[in-house]
Amino acid sequence: MPNSRGPLFVIGGHEDKEGGRRILGAIAEELGEGTLVIATIASAKRDGYFEAYCEGFAPLGIGRLVELYLDDRDQARDPARVRMIDQADGIFFTGGDQSRLMSLTGDTPIEAAIHALHDRGGLIAGTSAGASAQGETMLVGGSGEETPRIDDIELAKGLRLIRDCIIDQHFAERGRIGRLLGAVSRCPDCLGIGIDEDTALRIEAGTARVIGSGGVTIVDASRASHSNSEGTKLDDTVSLHGATLHALGEGDRFDLVARSPFR
Amino acid sequence: MPNSRGPLFVIGGHEDKEGGRRILGAIAEELGEGTLVIATIASAKRDGYFEAYCEGFAPLGIGRLVELYLDDRDQARDPARVRMIDQADGIFFTGGDQSRLMSLTGDTPIEAAIHALHDRGGLIAGTSAGASAQGETMLVGGSGEETPRIDDIELAKGLRLIRDCIIDQHFAERGRIGRLLGAVSRCPDCLGIGIDEDTALRIEAGTARVIGSGGVTIVDASRASHSNSEGTKLDDTVSLHGATLHALGEGDRFDLVARSPFR
Repeated sequence: MPNSRGPLFVIGGHEDKEGGRRILGAIAEELGEGTLVIATIASAKRDGYFEAYCEGFAPLGIGRLVELYLDDRDQARDPARVRMIDQADGIFFTGGDQSRLMSLTGDTPIEAAIHALHDRGGLIAGTSAGASAQGETMLVGGSGEETPRIDDIELAKGLRLIRDCIIDQHFAERGRIGRLLGAVSRCPDCLGIGIDEDTALRIEAGTARVIGSGGVTIVDASRASHSNSEGTKLDDTVSLHGATLHALGEGDRFDLVARSPFR
Repeated sequence: MPNSRGPLFVIGGHEDKEGGRRILGAIAEELGEGTLVIATIASAKRDGYFEAYCEGFAPLGIGRLVELYLDDRDQARDPARVRMIDQADGIFFTGGDQSRLMSLTGDTPIEAAIHALHDRGGLIAGTSAGASAQGETMLVGGSGEETPRIDDIELAKGLRLIRDCIIDQHFAERGRIGRLLGAVSRCPDCLGIGIDEDTALRIEAGTARVIGSGGVTIVDASRASHSNSEGTKLDDTVSLHGATLHALGEGDRFDLVARSPFR
């Protein structure tokens, strides 16, 4: 029943919350009068994220926003918190640290509730760390703006809402192509997806569409002819021959099954 | 007579001048007791570049270093300056602004002398701006670390020592994949070559080899299925479907004619 699953919004961070609000507007339009959980779990401090999204969504007419925060893994088993997701129409993961998000929710009733929401057609959105967590595999190490080296790259399990992919965010702004190439070199069957700030992929039924002011870079290393992912010295630079690269802008679409872009 | 042409060293900037000096050492080894012209033309001020290279090459046993600087285009017609290149075994272009280098030397006897040196087997090296100038087409505008937009990209004529290519430098360090994608999207027949700092391509007889501590990124858009290079709004993001990307590290080679990497 893949077609009954809800839409995903995978956002590269710093989405506009004060001006045209393209991305928040698209989310609000799909939710209508529904309830959206703002999950601020990725942040070590609550830091006013919920309030910022209340202001950002205020003029867009969403029915109701509620905050979900977790101090520890015990709270991820709290029935009242699980019920928030069970009763919602969508969930929005704010930024922070994707490792915090996954270490608090992984294999808990909260994670199961997120998947159940998705399976019953609910909307799931995430920005920055909340974008990375939607992939099958998350990048949790590796700096931008350096020659990528094999040992820079650390991978961890994500929410697996989008299979066979690694998502990176703040992509152009933080010069992250190197670490994405390192990641797909380590995991060539995973599609590498780099999303710029104020830019989102809306994914439904295996098709992604670009929304927002920036670009999306997709690296497909599945047919690459050489990769030094295994058996090389850890300080080696990444060597990847014959990957396919797609640079997508607003209006571009991407078939995640066939791995091909279209307009 | 392509095989009688001399080797090119295309360096991504900030090559090591104090430690192992891999790149300077490779140049010194090929030159032996010969004379190397240090061309500091790309810099608006002489700024001690010549002295820095004298120190960098000092322990490597090059026969003789001489400086070539130009204050204006008239000096690019000065027979004494042209003779410096005619009598040299190699020339090394230091960094600065590739537009200054080309605007002072383009279509002058100095440029002809550079090509004559190459044709008779002399060595030509260039770092940073001096690397960009060796390509057929130079990138002279476009910032790094932003979503690439069509109007960010400005292209100009280079020395054309390497045909059908656009070279960018300080590549990983300045997050320049976006502007390189924008450039090849504008000029899909040109191979896009991004070279990291302390990294060089040594090119001879159509084959390039990576030397140094960083990586080289090659984007081949010649078979890309969609590109918004022409007829799009200037503030559009770059859209390029199905480019081929190669990430090369030390030990990797690249056939510039077949456009394929090998080891």
